[in-house]
Amino acid sequence: MRGQVAIAGAGCVKVGEHWERSALDLAAEACLKALEDAGNPRVRAVYVGNAASELLNEQGNLASLLADALALESVKAVEVRAGDASGALALHQACLDVLAGVGREPILVCGVEKITDVLAPEAERIQMLFEDARSTFHSGVTIPGLCALLTRLYMERYGASYEDLVALAVNDHKNAAGCPHAQFPFPITVEAILNSPLVADPIRLLDTPGFGDGAAALVLAEADEARRLNDSPVRILASEVVAGRMNFCEREDPLTIPSLREAAKRALAAAGLGVKEVDFFELHNTTSVVGALALEELGLAERGEGWKLISEGRIALGADWPVNTMGGLKGRGHPWGATGTYQAVEAVLQLRGEAGKNQVNGAEVGLAHNMCGLGSVSCVHVFARWEVKA
Amino acid sequence: MRGQVAIAGAGCVKVGEHWERSALDLAAEACLKALEDAGNPRVRAVYVGNAASELLNEQGNLASLLADALALESVKAVEVRAGDASGALALHQACLDVLAGVGREPILVCGVEKITDVLAPEAERIQMLFEDARSTFHSGVTIPGLCALLTRLYMERYGASYEDLVALAVNDHKNAAGCPHAQFPFPITVEAILNSPLVADPIRLLDTPGFGDGAAALVLAEADEARRLNDSPVRILASEVVAGRMNFCEREDPLTIPSLREAAKRALAAAGLGVKEVDFFELHNTTSVVGALALEELGLAERGEGWKLISEGRIALGADWPVNTMGGLKGRGHPWGATGTYQAVEAVLQLRGEAGKNQVNGAEVGLAHNMCGLGSVSCVHVFARWEVKA
Repeated sequence: MRGQVAIAGAGCVKVGEHWERSALDLAAEACLKALEDAGNPRVRAVYVGNAASELLNEQGNLASLLADALALESVKAVEVRAGDASGALALHQACLDVLAGVGREPILVCGVEKITDVLAPEAERIQMLFEDARSTFHSGVTIPGLCALLTRLYMERYGASYEDLVALAVNDHKNAAGCPHAQFPFPITVEAILNSPLVADPIRLLDTPGFGDGAAALVLAEADEARRLNDSPVRILASEVVAGRMNFCEREDPLTIPSLREAAKRALAAAGLGVKEVDFFELHNTTSVVGALALEELGLAERGEGWKLISEGRIALGADWPVNTMGGLKGRGHPWGATGTYQAVEAVLQLRGEAGKNQVNGAEVGLAHNMCGLGSVSCVHVFARWEVKA
Repeated sequence: MRGQVAIAGAGCVKVGEHWERSALDLAAEACLKALEDAGNPRVRAVYVGNAASELLNEQGNLASLLADALALESVKAVEVRAGDASGALALHQACLDVLAGVGREPILVCGVEKITDVLAPEAERIQMLFEDARSTFHSGVTIPGLCALLTRLYMERYGASYEDLVALAVNDHKNAAGCPHAQFPFPITVEAILNSPLVADPIRLLDTPGFGDGAAALVLAEADEARRLNDSPVRILASEVVAGRMNFCEREDPLTIPSLREAAKRALAAAGLGVKEVDFFELHNTTSVVGALALEELGLAERGEGWKLISEGRIALGADWPVNTMGGLKGRGHPWGATGTYQAVEAVLQLRGEAGKNQVNGAEVGLAHNMCGLGSVSCVHVFARWEVKA
């Protein structure tokens, strides 16, 4: 990618338990907001990222239904699926569609998930369908259970305490408090986390994302077209998708996320930037240990030292490397297939200077990482203010 | 699209009841065949089309698993989903990836479905998840049930008999008899159809596709690159995806498939061809009536006269407009997410002159239509011999 794609509009619904609304309702609201933000252009395609609507909501084919609900006649409708990386994957596919030069009109991208139609244990079962059934699903382990194994190993090998790690969840909640669309917009303390119920030793409830419903949408176009629609379009300098070994026990080192490392390397190269030139980071912190690993894979910390950036507060707003500026998975919420598009919407807010009290001063470039499970697929996007060119 | 994408390799497994093999096994076999056909190039991405593996096989995330199974390190992995149009949709997205110019190495595309892990009533339930739950799923109607309504209306309005229509199923089985990968490689008669069990009046069992497992794969590349890999690459002159009103009762006329009409119009325009310049057609004949409607939407017959082309045998091999040259949904089989890629593999065989006794003499251009349900999404591809340029 050479910076020819830009975001002309963005919108989202508040993450939460939307008992009275369907996945389609949520998606349509987010899309209408994004379209309005872009001046209600005519679009030629709808891309939907969704992890599991057939299982959660007994309704598949959301892309076609959404086109119909929005009264878009004869547009292209595409649904992509990569578990909780579906949102960013939809964004990637839409970028390719713009770059392919098959049409000039803008494209709508929507990530959506309605999880609360099922009970939590069923949601956990469904989440595991995106792991390898042969080695994990049928063993009964859950995502927090897998994270517990990683956390134990990380603490033992690198000398970090659980308190050191969960400072990331504290950071997320602090930022979520200033985010209008966050599911949990209130601060929490390390003590509160340590006193919350044990989910999978040592992981505590307040170190895991809750289940929430949500939808976030974007209007994409070729850069000059985006500029015609919006005075402050946000550039997508890079969009990379890389698959990795699904089971971390089969990786060379379980405390690594090779798909993230490779995707970030490619994305930064495409953007022509070093990681330390990025002003903020939206990370896929399934639990705090994953955030520590991500900081290492991005090259912000040496192997085994990501936890120090966290525990020393160097990832806070106003510090060296602001992380999860609108709350991340823990604070904003993690509606699987929508998370990647929420990250993009939040990057748009930061880069247009509309992030309110969570604004990263002078933010010019942001990076987002959205992944499936614990790294079977990683999507990395680099976003920039209109004035920044790759 | 301006003809810059071509197919450098193709392969598939025989459609059937593969009790002893997983979706991943089938996909891997098809991919290995396609890769071998292209000279085993290094690929940079894997696209998978699959309708419902989480529900059918308790295993999602097939694209990432497939990359791993094929020992493809750090490639892009993308899964797309549009019910039984998933295969052609994966092909479309892979075409965009080639055209976007983000990489030179070829791309692997695989459509796969393993249906027989569940019993037929559950398969029928899952199939309906791609229709609108608000109006059809919860009413208990099935796809053959919807086709029965269309068939009754078609017969009444246009004066066709059921015998006239099911001549398409007879055509399909006749062609399937010469197809090495067909699920039902034997001829049937109109009498056999009329004597087979009633599924949904007037639809008979032998007028509906069976449930079968299968996988078909392609290696795509930019045209010149494809030519370096294979002496006889097949060009993709056009790839169009269009969404339409899901419920046919909400269409202006229920006896239409507007998504097909529009996709075919765009595809033929992109290819610079009239429909009568196409040498053969792979159609998505869920039941025979849908084949009649498709002939009308393509412009091969006037509205209400598609059945005449069928009953007069003008769609046979060697006749005016050969349809479903390798058996179509009825004869080759219809493994949902794989069907679109089977159509493409069959087009490759025809255009390379490798279709054996089913060869369409002098075939230069073929068109394939793959759709979700009864037209909520239509994908139309136009394929051509290397020597033909758009």
